[in-house]
Amino acid sequence: MNVQGKALRTIFLADDDWRVTIIDQTVLPHQFQLLHLSSLSDMATAISDMQVRGAPLIGAAASYGMALAMREDASDTMLVNAYNTLLATRPTAVNLHWALNEMKAVLVTLSEDQREQAAYQKAAELCDEDVAICSAIGDHGLPLIESLWQAKEKKASSEQRVNILTHCNAGWLATVDWGTALSPIYKAHNAGIPVHVWVDETRPRNQGFNLTAWELGQHGVPHTIVVDNVGGHLMQHGQVDMCIVGTDRTTRTGDVCNKIGTYLKALAAFDNHIPFYVALPSPTIDWSIRDGVADIPIEERSSREVTHIVGRTQQGNIQEIQIAPDNSAAINYGFDVTPARLITGLITERGVASRTVNNVNSKDDAGLEAPLAQLFSDKLPKNR
Amino acid sequence: MNVQGKALRTIFLADDDWRVTIIDQTVLPHQFQLLHLSSLSDMATAISDMQVRGAPLIGAAASYGMALAMREDASDTMLVNAYNTLLATRPTAVNLHWALNEMKAVLVTLSEDQREQAAYQKAAELCDEDVAICSAIGDHGLPLIESLWQAKEKKASSEQRVNILTHCNAGWLATVDWGTALSPIYKAHNAGIPVHVWVDETRPRNQGFNLTAWELGQHGVPHTIVVDNVGGHLMQHGQVDMCIVGTDRTTRTGDVCNKIGTYLKALAAFDNHIPFYVALPSPTIDWSIRDGVADIPIEERSSREVTHIVGRTQQGNIQEIQIAPDNSAAINYGFDVTPARLITGLITERGVASRTVNNVNSKDDAGLEAPLAQLFSDKLPKNR
Repeated sequence: MNVQGKALRTIFLADDDWRVTIIDQTVLPHQFQLLHLSSLSDMATAISDMQVRGAPLIGAAASYGMALAMREDASDTMLVNAYNTLLATRPTAVNLHWALNEMKAVLVTLSEDQREQAAYQKAAELCDEDVAICSAIGDHGLPLIESLWQAKEKKASSEQRVNILTHCNAGWLATVDWGTALSPIYKAHNAGIPVHVWVDETRPRNQGFNLTAWELGQHGVPHTIVVDNVGGHLMQHGQVDMCIVGTDRTTRTGDVCNKIGTYLKALAAFDNHIPFYVALPSPTIDWSIRDGVADIPIEERSSREVTHIVGRTQQGNIQEIQIAPDNSAAINYGFDVTPARLITGLITERGVASRTVNNVNSKDDAGLEAPLAQLFSDKLPKNR
Repeated sequence: MNVQGKALRTIFLADDDWRVTIIDQTVLPHQFQLLHLSSLSDMATAISDMQVRGAPLIGAAASYGMALAMREDASDTMLVNAYNTLLATRPTAVNLHWALNEMKAVLVTLSEDQREQAAYQKAAELCDEDVAICSAIGDHGLPLIESLWQAKEKKASSEQRVNILTHCNAGWLATVDWGTALSPIYKAHNAGIPVHVWVDETRPRNQGFNLTAWELGQHGVPHTIVVDNVGGHLMQHGQVDMCIVGTDRTTRTGDVCNKIGTYLKALAAFDNHIPFYVALPSPTIDWSIRDGVADIPIEERSSREVTHIVGRTQQGNIQEIQIAPDNSAAINYGFDVTPARLITGLITERGVASRTVNNVNSKDDAGLEAPLAQLFSDKLPKNR
């Protein structure tokens, strides 16, 4: 997507063709700063300090971390060391594990003098694959936006734009390009459909303001930022035509575990008969579980993310301030689970798995499990 | 309620028996500072700068503002001037208007030499009346908490505390004492029931962290602060036994207009079969309207409240920082409407108006209108 008018990926090779360039996401939206990483240690720090974040981007970054390591030292010792070092940066990230295994599988079979080149090549392939998946999600989501626009365009009385609400950041900053939830929105914008995005702040880490608003602004997509409390009111007053969010983990029944607060927006969408879509690359589907609320453990993060917040002073400095009383306990759950019954459809790289009837009480509602299984019949666990 | 171990009201006479003492609520929770106001102009500034806020407290403050004015100059000219000056501080506050009318009605009938003493006396009476109303709300809400506790206490397996979620600040800081939503909680705590309160941050003005958490902490009520996104997750996991919130305006059918985000918590409570109560002094009931979503205009406030936030630096200074990108538009709705169908009951100074069946789909559900009208039959508009 565009930054300052120029198309950019979130991770790419510097002009010297070996250093790895990333956007330092910890200082967004206040500073746009590219970092050129030249070692395994640089990349490990970038991932653990969250200069790069978002499951797909973490995977891509780790694979380039392996390439940088092989450039430093292509020995078996380094291979093991690099794998372990990168794996330890974000222990719960599934994509990280997967990408490192992909890299290792290629590299162990090669002699030391072949490893550097092969590692760069494989890392580039993994990045391109991610772009292809995200682009496909956008292509499958685009018709949903198009049909809302066609219906609205015909009514002279309605506002001449499609209003889409999103939560957190499932944009190109979380992936290599396009994003997941934002991919259909970028495709629609690029196709000339007048989309407007309501961007939830997404406390406590404020990824909505810091990342989603910034990337939409850079690409020129009209948007308005709101605090997390506002979505229900907007929906009650016809100001939201659809919601699209991402997901970190999806059950085979279609329950989704996404950033804390997603469930509240899904409830409001359901209460106001507004389509609620979740965009996801299929690797986030966990075919082994059925009940998201009961079976997905929720990460509890540092209470400091709740009690303190970072921003920019009038003088232009990045500053952290305390916003809670000294002696109040704080708890910080990172995610919540939205039951499939509140979700209209899942937008995947293979197509949209959607329910036929958007009403949990209807006898005709077959849920999301069957349509999802149909799209991914080759991936279903063999024993079921 | 207690501050630093000592019982305090939010507004009272200083030791010299004529200056009016308030808590500067703009620097909470970081600094506890009493201000001694000695003139009409001091009080007008305190109200307009929100050093005092909350509908009942604004009314009380305005009445003492009239008393200070009469001490300065008890002429008819000053009476009119003081009335108009105070009325202009917060133009939409209904209690402000009501309290000023009460004061004026007493003062206009008196000679100049009687006015100062009468004004102080009437202001004290209005404060005592507010305390009595809030205390009665607490007394009527207390049995609801007691019965939840009795049910929980019997089960050895359950957590030995009653968990209550609240949004924004409807505590004693918004009134003269006790508060509205927090009044039943203080009564329960004082009665030895182990209550624990989940305090919503309440973006964008953060009254939950700044005020509710601070006042609960000062009075010794166990509580945990959470961002606004968390409540749904807590409810899904059995960590909330009931919700109690306040309201700024209530329709005769029981729809409530309260701080933005209340509707989302009511949806989550309903989805998880958790009782959702609204506490209110009867003057907030607007008997002239039936449909809150359609008929209550929602205040749109400055976008700066969304894009900037105030807190304390490590050095102990109060500092404002920017937390949004420079070029993103922001919108700031102050309130939303929670439909009566999601509300279990309304806790008033005369008793609890509650539905018989907590299920919108049930044919037996008579809603909240009839029980509310029964409590306030003497206040119903004559022409209906």
